[in-house]
Amino acid sequence: MGLFSSPPKVYKPAADVDLGPGSDEFYISPNVKAPRVAGLLVKIFVWILEMPIVGPIVLYILKKDNLINKLVSDADIPEPPLFTPTHSWEDIPEQNVRLTKPDMSAAERVQEAVGCLPQLPARLEATLAADAGPGLRRWTVRDFSDAYRSGETTPVQVATRFLEAVRQSSGPELNMAFFISCDPEDVMRQAKESTLRYQRGAPLSALDGVLVGVKDEIDCLPYPTTGGTRWLGAARRCEADAACVAQLRACGAILAGKANMHELGAGTSGINPHHGSTRNPYNASKVAGGSSSGSAAVVCAGLCPVALGVDGGGSVRMPAALCGVVGFKPTAGRLSNAGVLPLNWTVGMPGILAGTVEDAFIAYSAIVDQSQPSYLRPELNLPQLSSTPSIGNIKLAKYGKWFNDSAEDIRSCCDKALQALHAHYGWQTVDVTIPEIEEMRLAHYVTIGSECTTSLARYLDNLKRSEIGWDARVALSVYGSFSSRAYLNSQRLRNRQMFFHKQIFKTADVIVSPMTGVTAYTLQDDALNTGELDYINGAALIRYSIAGNFLGLPAITVKVGYDRSGLPIGLQFIGRPWSEATLLHVAFATQQACANGYKKPAVFYDLLNKQQD
Amino acid sequence: MGLFSSPPKVYKPAADVDLGPGSDEFYISPNVKAPRVAGLLVKIFVWILEMPIVGPIVLYILKKDNLINKLVSDADIPEPPLFTPTHSWEDIPEQNVRLTKPDMSAAERVQEAVGCLPQLPARLEATLAADAGPGLRRWTVRDFSDAYRSGETTPVQVATRFLEAVRQSSGPELNMAFFISCDPEDVMRQAKESTLRYQRGAPLSALDGVLVGVKDEIDCLPYPTTGGTRWLGAARRCEADAACVAQLRACGAILAGKANMHELGAGTSGINPHHGSTRNPYNASKVAGGSSSGSAAVVCAGLCPVALGVDGGGSVRMPAALCGVVGFKPTAGRLSNAGVLPLNWTVGMPGILAGTVEDAFIAYSAIVDQSQPSYLRPELNLPQLSSTPSIGNIKLAKYGKWFNDSAEDIRSCCDKALQALHAHYGWQTVDVTIPEIEEMRLAHYVTIGSECTTSLARYLDNLKRSEIGWDARVALSVYGSFSSRAYLNSQRLRNRQMFFHKQIFKTADVIVSPMTGVTAYTLQDDALNTGELDYINGAALIRYSIAGNFLGLPAITVKVGYDRSGLPIGLQFIGRPWSEATLLHVAFATQQACANGYKKPAVFYDLLNKQQD
Repeated sequence: MGLFSSPPKVYKPAADVDLGPGSDEFYISPNVKAPRVAGLLVKIFVWILEMPIVGPIVLYILKKDNLINKLVSDADIPEPPLFTPTHSWEDIPEQNVRLTKPDMSAAERVQEAVGCLPQLPARLEATLAADAGPGLRRWTVRDFSDAYRSGETTPVQVATRFLEAVRQSSGPELNMAFFISCDPEDVMRQAKESTLRYQRGAPLSALDGVLVGVKDEIDCLPYPTTGGTRWLGAARRCEADAACVAQLRACGAILAGKANMHELGAGTSGINPHHGSTRNPYNASKVAGGSSSGSAAVVCAGLCPVALGVDGGGSVRMPAALCGVVGFKPTAGRLSNAGVLPLNWTVGMPGILAGTVEDAFIAYSAIVDQSQPSYLRPELNLPQLSSTPSIGNIKLAKYGKWFNDSAEDIRSCCDKALQALHAHYGWQTVDVTIPEIEEMRLAHYVTIGSECTTSLARYLDNLKRSEIGWDARVALSVYGSFSSRAYLNSQRLRNRQMFFHKQIFKTADVIVSPMTGVTAYTLQDDALNTGELDYINGAALIRYSIAGNFLGLPAITVKVGYDRSGLPIGLQFIGRPWSEATLLHVAFATQQACANGYKKPAVFYDLLNKQQD
Repeated sequence: MGLFSSPPKVYKPAADVDLGPGSDEFYISPNVKAPRVAGLLVKIFVWILEMPIVGPIVLYILKKDNLINKLVSDADIPEPPLFTPTHSWEDIPEQNVRLTKPDMSAAERVQEAVGCLPQLPARLEATLAADAGPGLRRWTVRDFSDAYRSGETTPVQVATRFLEAVRQSSGPELNMAFFISCDPEDVMRQAKESTLRYQRGAPLSALDGVLVGVKDEIDCLPYPTTGGTRWLGAARRCEADAACVAQLRACGAILAGKANMHELGAGTSGINPHHGSTRNPYNASKVAGGSSSGSAAVVCAGLCPVALGVDGGGSVRMPAALCGVVGFKPTAGRLSNAGVLPLNWTVGMPGILAGTVEDAFIAYSAIVDQSQPSYLRPELNLPQLSSTPSIGNIKLAKYGKWFNDSAEDIRSCCDKALQALHAHYGWQTVDVTIPEIEEMRLAHYVTIGSECTTSLARYLDNLKRSEIGWDARVALSVYGSFSSRAYLNSQRLRNRQMFFHKQIFKTADVIVSPMTGVTAYTLQDDALNTGELDYINGAALIRYSIAGNFLGLPAITVKVGYDRSGLPIGLQFIGRPWSEATLLHVAFATQQACANGYKKPAVFYDLLNKQQD
């Protein structure tokens, strides 16, 4: 790239940048030239990086090559830093919503959310799957809840089937590596308590008895929290449920175990040398994506209608897209980070993976953090979802150069989805320019990397390197190499992007993009022990994720189709701060409009066991 | 120090630290071993630091020696980072205040403030000076305003005397280096307009016709803003008044010129090789302190009753103490930073230097920023000052080890002041422990240094090094060497300190300390061209300043006496967020209780010219 020998970038003031469709802003697609590396080569690379003098020099050259110096560290940026993507309250009227009372319990909010769902047909995917052959039932929270209430089945029966499915999928044949830990006794104990509540006619909420997977980055008793490592669970005790887990527990949900993840969230493939590499239920030879790999895969495989993930750089939404489920990351501050591993401080937060938008909505209503003072977040709007379009006149901002920087199947599938939304609901696409996408990705990388090594330093400084996976060691070496100037300039770019996005939201309600630039790619054997360095697929995966984290904007991905090999494709909507209700409306409508041609995952479990009826 | 070879510090959770008087927390007085360096040695040191490979190695060793690695960069800190010291609104009732209306203009607020002043005696220092020999009149804003109104004198007459005094003090004999620029035509034009307003009987406010000096870090037309350099004025155009300057102008104040400062605010002595080193009016062979050296000195010398400074690390309060005037830095966010050189982003803000607490109060009422949304700052309370104690039952938190870590004269003088406050008003001293004072200083240093080099990089990267003073080059070399981990860990220490201070404010209304650890020290000839590296005096000067900046707390210094060589001593009060009214009450009462033994500065101008009456 010609930029290598040019001087550092001089940014013009954000207010002078043209955000219109005819803007002459330059779109930089990351021109990653690094070849995929796995096996012995990864090890050699780590040895070099960790050498005292050579390592930093190699890193310096690598970072130069990745444009970080020219676009971030040494750049001339007019704006001051913006350190956290927190949004104060703004009064944006949302259509067709119900306002909750601020003092409602999690269970009360769940019941309120269920009251916002359309009465029929609840079993959306089941209905849609009619042409996908008999036997597929991706049951929703309401299906479980109804079945428990009617006595058709019990949480104990479902939990028993769940544990059998976990056992089977973990065996050498499938080797799906869904969970890092799953304690059958603890699951059965919860299932029994839930069953008793239904017998007494007193379930706690619609989530009572519903299995929920929890990414192993979130504290959940009685499990250690490993963060995908083999040492962190012992180095840091898990002493209580995370805030969002405690709320789910208070709703009666069965915490089903700790879902697998990419080690320390430091990668996007879900390849994990310590706990096994999560496989994609649609095609077990493909990656599930990451870092919330297990959470996406268990939902995809029908093991849990809902799972919790953590999204610091698309880590909920990317695996959701690759596994064909819903991935939902609310506005920064909407969910509590209490009890989530502090792998970073300003970009990560919990997110929800669910089989359907309705279930993501129910889980969301349970885990919102209502303890913050009201000037930090507005009251909670719940969307009134209905089978007929219940929200009109939505404007979708689309940045063509970015939107189209994806695999051909993704591009055409996402374009078709936009056409369907226009055909069904009359929604308009507004062409815009979102400047400095690649600059934002690099600034986010400097930010998450700096924060990750700093927050983990207390452990890493006293840890034998051999405890850490090879690919994570590469990541940590790079993460630890940034200057305070690189960090501060990254926050100045954050400020610019916040400005750009606020401007765009003056002309559109949501920004629309593919969720990933590629679909699930092949999980190669040589990567199983060392992980792999695949910055080409990595950059393509993460291309559309950054604004959600770096700017704290709510974002959601919905499956809108499949590529030619039958792998799912996700469409992403990024919303205004605090506009989760609108985003859920949009996602629900999209799910309805783009549901044709449902394909069943190759690995799939029917826990309500209806195909045997 | 034995700590050098010990491992990095492991901090215990902030909530577990004992803040009581019997705490076993260790007080680290900075054991600076670097000898004072000036002249050729400074140049040699710069050459070494700026060498490609050797420089960073030398810096690494130096920073190790200064404990930054062990206490900050490599330390194990339980808390997450807190990036900005902004305080949201808190409802703390303040005694004896008047609430302003939110939509008042600057001039209306000034009149409101004047209405809060005691009716008599306005001419406090004049009264106090009775035993200081005849002829001394340190006139206040009200003195000028009364004299203009009564026709006793006019702004034109005062401005004429002012310009003559500036000319005289700048001559080779005195060489005080008060101002970097002062345009006689502009001053006279303003004075004439003010005089006409008084002739029409329509002055804009009590500040109409009052001379106000402006630190050359704050934009003020028609002057360039040099930041104490010889290049920044040309590299960055000054296109409008800073927000606080515009408010003073709207009150009719005469902007009297750009006061001298330490180059880029990167030092505390006020020695400036480009614009001359500001001399202390009490003793011209001593430094004025910095970085707002000129602002403190012009007030001290009677040239302006009020001047604006900028306080990023005590830069208003330290020179105020050394020059025996009031230095007042409100809560972060109370004054606008618009139009202030962005030498840093999270620790600096404008501050006020004034001859008396009353005048600091009047200037403060003029320049408060009322444009922020109300959840970011409470409404403005104005203290009802009166000659009899108007605020009772104040509790003063004192950390003995820290308080006493100052020169003997300062310690005993400040102790006497506390006794006087107890004798006059019955105020109690509460013994507390403020942990990690030295750690906070280092974290602040990493923060201001990282932010300074990042914000100036756009200029510095294309600047010939020889344009910069030698001591500033040393500072910039160190500033540019910090890692993102050092920066992030500094913000974690900020979070701890915020917690500690909030706890202390549960038991006391204000924290009391000396303002500086030493009084004005000698300005040596060998430093005039190169600046000097005097980290021993520097550390002693800055010892008590950091909480005001790093935690955004309001702080004020009042002269409470003199050392044995007749140099002023300041006592500092640090208040709760947004408690400026209480702080002004306390400072006013202190000024009254500790005013005995007034000494006249050696260089002093009587602009109302009454000694000749």
